[in-house]
Amino acid sequence: MSNFSLKAAENLQKIRETKPLIHNITNFVVMNYTANVLLSMGASPVMAHAENEVEDMVAFAGALILNIGTLTESWVASMLKAGQQATALQTPIILDPVGSGATPFRTASAKLIIEKTKVSIIRGNASEVLSLGSQQSTTKGVDTMHSVQNAALTASHLAQELKTILAITGPIDLVTDGSRVFNIANGHPLMPYVTGTGCSATAVTGAFAAVDTDYLTAAATALAFFGLAGEMAGETANGPGTFMVHLLDALYTMTPEQLEKGCRISER
Amino acid sequence: MSNFSLKAAENLQKIRETKPLIHNITNFVVMNYTANVLLSMGASPVMAHAENEVEDMVAFAGALILNIGTLTESWVASMLKAGQQATALQTPIILDPVGSGATPFRTASAKLIIEKTKVSIIRGNASEVLSLGSQQSTTKGVDTMHSVQNAALTASHLAQELKTILAITGPIDLVTDGSRVFNIANGHPLMPYVTGTGCSATAVTGAFAAVDTDYLTAAATALAFFGLAGEMAGETANGPGTFMVHLLDALYTMTPEQLEKGCRISER
Amino acid sequence: MSNFSLKAAENLQKIRETKPLIHNITNFVVMNYTANVLLSMGASPVMAHAENEVEDMVAFAGALILNIGTLTESWVASMLKAGQQATALQTPIILDPVGSGATPFRTASAKLIIEKTKVSIIRGNASEVLSLGSQQSTTKGVDTMHSVQNAALTASHLAQELKTILAITGPIDLVTDGSRVFNIANGHPLMPYVTGTGCSATAVTGAFAAVDTDYLTAAATALAFFGLAGEMAGETANGPGTFMVHLLDALYTMTPEQLEKGCRISER
Repeated sequence: MSNFSLKAAENLQKIRETKPLIHNITNFVVMNYTANVLLSMGASPVMAHAENEVEDMVAFAGALILNIGTLTESWVASMLKAGQQATALQTPIILDPVGSGATPFRTASAKLIIEKTKVSIIRGNASEVLSLGSQQSTTKGVDTMHSVQNAALTASHLAQELKTILAITGPIDLVTDGSRVFNIANGHPLMPYVTGTGCSATAVTGAFAAVDTDYLTAAATALAFFGLAGEMAGETANGPGTFMVHLLDALYTMTPEQLEKGCRISER
Repeated sequence: MSNFSLKAAENLQKIRETKPLIHNITNFVVMNYTANVLLSMGASPVMAHAENEVEDMVAFAGALILNIGTLTESWVASMLKAGQQATALQTPIILDPVGSGATPFRTASAKLIIEKTKVSIIRGNASEVLSLGSQQSTTKGVDTMHSVQNAALTASHLAQELKTILAITGPIDLVTDGSRVFNIANGHPLMPYVTGTGCSATAVTGAFAAVDTDYLTAAATALAFFGLAGEMAGETANGPGTFMVHLLDALYTMTPEQLEKGCRISER
Repeated sequence: MSNFSLKAAENLQKIRETKPLIHNITNFVVMNYTANVLLSMGASPVMAHAENEVEDMVAFAGALILNIGTLTESWVASMLKAGQQATALQTPIILDPVGSGATPFRTASAKLIIEKTKVSIIRGNASEVLSLGSQQSTTKGVDTMHSVQNAALTASHLAQELKTILAITGPIDLVTDGSRVFNIANGHPLMPYVTGTGCSATAVTGAFAAVDTDYLTAAATALAFFGLAGEMAGETANGPGTFMVHLLDALYTMTPEQLEKGCRISER
């Protein structure tokens, strides 16, 4: 556990030093907050979705975030174009399958991105992530996720099927590459009351993947960092409004030493 | 009056218990704040505007919000599609005619939505709402709204013409179904200094309509709740920035008992 | 210097009195914050980008903001249409060339707007603004901007080439019409950690240009006002989150007298 804490601190230090550019093709609801999260933690966000510039932009980026909230056909086309360029450049792609499972269009779009590009990490909640599996894994999955122990097994199988790393957030986060499984216990109960905290966790994961080529530890340490910032924000918040503001402050002020000390990653 | 206060408290309690999904097709400026308003008060927001998923999404929703700010042709098409599905499912539709009367495109789009779908409640400011009437009512209306007494008469006639409930916000809000008229005296002078407070009032009205099938009391109690949250935020705000943040906190922390006590709805 | 301070105070007073409508065609990331900045300072923002209404909307406006972040082809078309209407009406156009120089699409779009409309002021950072010049000025420019003295010379030449006023923001802002050069020393180190502070400076410049037909002093006093609000916010901020909130409060509470006293504009 102390190894992961040290890795988390090192990753944060590297982000602050190198200020990696994170290219986001994300939904309208969270664009502003996601950009502020990335700026506050020390990364450099750029939002660009035009088909005639995404390939140029991704070439500068340390990571590409594909987030399917508020999706339309033309955005899917841009995501595929940017994703194929990122794949060619071996730039990590982090997929956030917002609302996958809720409508056929979202589920199909997320699956298309997984099929046509090399997704390094998928970050979502349990029902979104499980909707990406083949029919039988999904149906079994939704039920089994209620038990933490079964969740680990279900997620491992799905990570193997999708050949990617899964970062499933909830009261306790779970990160797996199909063989190793990590739990991250950082976080705060006000997080689900602020729109875009999940999407921001995805963007933060991108920033960590930009400085840590072991995407498994990148994902786990990113979620620990973001969750710990939530804990710090929760100490002074009076509700979701002050919480979302103090969360930005915490992402900015947290030192690598504080992260090393507060990080709660455990391997199952 | 105490009946409305009790109803307001009951409605808030129901929203907190059932967390109704509110489907928003709304403008880019306010998407984030609207989502945070709905989350803070205990509802579940979803933003989705793609023509190939709005019908799927609205099927899950307790209310549909159609907001015509930052409108384009393709968004009008999506609003009509979602609105017709909501009409078929008898899901309440709340229309926010942002900027209607300012440009012919906005006025025509708002009127088209009213014509092609069953709008349960229209929430706007006086000039926006009056722009939706036939030419003579409009021309007379803008002048008569300056007197509170004449405003009630003008609004009643327009509600009868449009066959819907009107929720007209201003220093004193007015809600009418064409026969009964309510005034809501809750609110705070900083509200017009934060973008999206009007649009958020519309979304809050949707959340109340999702749990109260009497859309007249739903609209009145929603505006009392939102206005009272503004009063609570105003107590600690130093300007529009802290106000908009504390408003989210107040929407989250306000108890049904506080609402019952602070609610200022009167029938004319 | 005292003349500029007085002018700044006068301009702010006029904005508070006349509440000019500022028409923004701007990027998705900053729409909400920009609208709140304009409302907080006392102006009236409107966001509208549909091709079939921009000409109607700009006819009401005291200034038009064209901001090329999150650009697509159809937005360029709307910007040109709105810009040509503003040109015909002699309404000041403020261009924010977000990301110009980063992708060919952005650079070409910014140049097209400059060619097809009468841009009164361009507000950007040094690399964005310099990307708008002819090839030799650009190449020389990026290097020379590192020295404040050379920057003034480079910017003057570019302002002459583009026949517009340049407002280049950084630790020290520079405003020039090609003959006179002003430096504005107001600002705060947390500004670059909040997304949309540059874009908001552009919108604020539009509000000042709506009340001050000498666009050179309009730009210089706008940047002093916005920078001073940043200084005031910085006094109580704990990080980028509280900073962005307190900045809105400061824009609202700052009096013309405070601006006159705190304004730090100097002519070179």
